[in-house]
Amino acid sequence: MSTKAIFYHAGCPVCVAAEQNVAHALDPAKYDVEIVHLGESNSRIQEAERAGVKSVPALVLDGATFHINFGADMDALK
Amino acid sequence: MSTKAIFYHAGCPVCVAAEQNVAHALDPAKYDVEIVHLGESNSRIQEAERAGVKSVPALVLDGATFHINFGADMDALK
Repeated sequence: MSTKAIFYHAGCPVCVAAEQNVAHALDPAKYDVEIVHLGESNSRIQEAERAGVKSVPALVLDGATFHINFGADMDALK
Repeated sequence: MSTKAIFYHAGCPVCVAAEQNVAHALDPAKYDVEIVHLGESNSRIQEAERAGVKSVPALVLDGATFHINFGADMDALK
């Protein structure tokens, strides 16, 4: 059974690089990856913050949050 | 054919979490992941810096460097 992984981004160049490399590199046998653009899906900012996301791009995997490089602070998306 | 991916760390708690989650989550069909402990393999610090690693944990994937959260600066390992 695959686990849900969520990759939060905001369309920035740093986000796109992390999406294309890291998010797409995850094992599809283990993870069902959802890509969420917080600039377009503002309503999901609160959910991301609850998961511990402070900046994008970030990957939430097995309940742990991993900030990958730095694109933008969450405050810049509100 | 699988591509080489290198995960650099220094044994810190942040490093271990990133290794267990992100490094081990990569698709084994696509990536051959090498785990390098820079505290134990000091001789590879220069190689990591050439790849653009500024802090650990970091993942070098397809020539791009991704810093995952923040454990320690490279300078702290020298």
